[in-house]
Amino acid sequence: MTTPSRSSALRIDLHTHILPHTWPDLEAKFGYGGFVRLDHHAPCEARMMVGDTCFREIDDACWNPDRRLRDCDQDHVDVQVLSTVPIMFCYWARPKDGLALAQILNDHLASVIVAHPTRFVGLGTVPMQDPSLAIRELTRCVRELGFAGVQIGSNVNGRNLDDPALFEIFAAAEELGAAVFVHPWEMVGQERMERYWLPWLVGMPAETSLAICSVLLGGIIDRLPALRIGFAHGGGAFPWLIGRLQKGFEARPDLVATASSVAPRSQLGKIYLDSLVHDTAGLTYLLRQVGEKRIALGSDYPFPLGESPVGHVIDAMPDLSPTTRSRLLAGTALEFLNRSAGMFASA
Amino acid sequence: MTTPSRSSALRIDLHTHILPHTWPDLEAKFGYGGFVRLDHHAPCEARMMVGDTCFREIDDACWNPDRRLRDCDQDHVDVQVLSTVPIMFCYWARPKDGLALAQILNDHLASVIVAHPTRFVGLGTVPMQDPSLAIRELTRCVRELGFAGVQIGSNVNGRNLDDPALFEIFAAAEELGAAVFVHPWEMVGQERMERYWLPWLVGMPAETSLAICSVLLGGIIDRLPALRIGFAHGGGAFPWLIGRLQKGFEARPDLVATASSVAPRSQLGKIYLDSLVHDTAGLTYLLRQVGEKRIALGSDYPFPLGESPVGHVIDAMPDLSPTTRSRLLAGTALEFLNRSAGMFASA
Repeated sequence: MTTPSRSSALRIDLHTHILPHTWPDLEAKFGYGGFVRLDHHAPCEARMMVGDTCFREIDDACWNPDRRLRDCDQDHVDVQVLSTVPIMFCYWARPKDGLALAQILNDHLASVIVAHPTRFVGLGTVPMQDPSLAIRELTRCVRELGFAGVQIGSNVNGRNLDDPALFEIFAAAEELGAAVFVHPWEMVGQERMERYWLPWLVGMPAETSLAICSVLLGGIIDRLPALRIGFAHGGGAFPWLIGRLQKGFEARPDLVATASSVAPRSQLGKIYLDSLVHDTAGLTYLLRQVGEKRIALGSDYPFPLGESPVGHVIDAMPDLSPTTRSRLLAGTALEFLNRSAGMFASA
Repeated sequence: MTTPSRSSALRIDLHTHILPHTWPDLEAKFGYGGFVRLDHHAPCEARMMVGDTCFREIDDACWNPDRRLRDCDQDHVDVQVLSTVPIMFCYWARPKDGLALAQILNDHLASVIVAHPTRFVGLGTVPMQDPSLAIRELTRCVRELGFAGVQIGSNVNGRNLDDPALFEIFAAAEELGAAVFVHPWEMVGQERMERYWLPWLVGMPAETSLAICSVLLGGIIDRLPALRIGFAHGGGAFPWLIGRLQKGFEARPDLVATASSVAPRSQLGKIYLDSLVHDTAGLTYLLRQVGEKRIALGSDYPFPLGESPVGHVIDAMPDLSPTTRSRLLAGTALEFLNRSAGMFASA
């Protein structure tokens, strides 16, 4: 591995995805279909297959830590926060199978981090379809595997994150000090998004806005004020809807303020967002509405809708103070992950 | 009516809703249910009823032109562009019933405008569920009733606006020089939005972003370059998704550019948006991404998620040139509606 030529500021990429190179045949193991298997059809290339359907073509950036570190060094990224690919959540699976799958993914994640403890941080996977098993695996992720927390899906089999059955998982995360990073999956309304990659372009932002509104308007943060919860893709459509949400809260509290009496604008300081908004106009708006304290560099590496080179939008921002820049590049992520800068290898 | 004390710049509110005071019993007339009736249960107040369910409480601002003009004068609005309330689209009705309903609404709209031709402009309603009937009524709206165009729903019974069956309606609008204003209704994913008024707060912006993407990525503007098409609520979530759309277009043209080879950023100058984004941070972003030439004051009067006083966000914008301000307050609307300022009564 080359010695990285990093800029002086620590850079942590909060939002990256990783898979094992291989895993057991889940369809054979569990006795029913719908799970992903990797078809390594060429050197450094694979297809994510569900049955006979190719979900996505990927390359070794997905599974090869050395390749990832080379890419990090090229983009001056000191630390990647690793989480699975959302299709692997499989919350539709039987609970004990979901637990077994989560354990496969988490044990792999732990092995990657153990080999490179100053370059990688883990966000585990838990079977949200069974809160008690989810809490058991969440506890293992944090206490035994040393992860900073977990990545969860934006809904659990169509139930939003304010579903009462899920509350105990968030309560356990708060108690454990585990970060919860929410990623869109099984996108709302995708039956109307057959063309133009719309589930990814329009569905994911809508799904994330629905998840954030469920958490905030559902009063989860009110009840768990120490919970550290973050959302991918700059919060999806949510930041753009703040004015509309606030207006709705003021105009029709009988409809909007049924579970939380805290105004949406007052909730903005209570959730974390990654910086993946693709241009400086977006990041300028995000900084104005949400503030640097709640925005952390995140790239969606290694996928094609991600930011590459990692951090180029923050780098292109005019007039950021060094304090704001370092907060966006690392400070917010360190706070969200409950890690100190000294744990990592930056020069 | 009081003489308005207007500011010097002409103000046109592109986005307002109106209903007749009363209309025939549609359930009895057509022989099946699902239509709205007004229950005038108190002076100046009514309930919009669908069967035994109250859809919305409204007041006489919805149906009384004199009340509307008093409100306009108070907010220094010279001209309201009138369109129906989206629930009245009823595209699920039998085509001939949809035509009959549209004619009831359009004849009422015409009567209001005839009485106040310098204060109101009309956008009619057409039965989109039957393109040939829709074109017939669209033609009547423009040629006989003197409307500037029509307001249509963001989908037609779950079909997006790029559905091939709808293309001839857009082609007719282009040929007639009719403006097409798209309003969200029957919101995508609302089955997951049971609480917190989410169909309005999250569903409408998602629905509008889906409509805009269908029009742009579906190549409708490429094929009809003279079509004037506008979208409510500042384009819903769409303006916030521009960076993601552009990235998707560049990264996966095989998925995104299947019907139009024009990049999303290059399409921004080809659609109109109203200004209803609720705060100056939002309008600043919108101006940066879309530009003043495509943004027109719109308030959603008289509904509670609307802007009141009308125009207060534009008024609160720092550093707008007089040219930009007058473009936002009237110039863009005049262009969209194909009207000249001299047709109206401004001082």
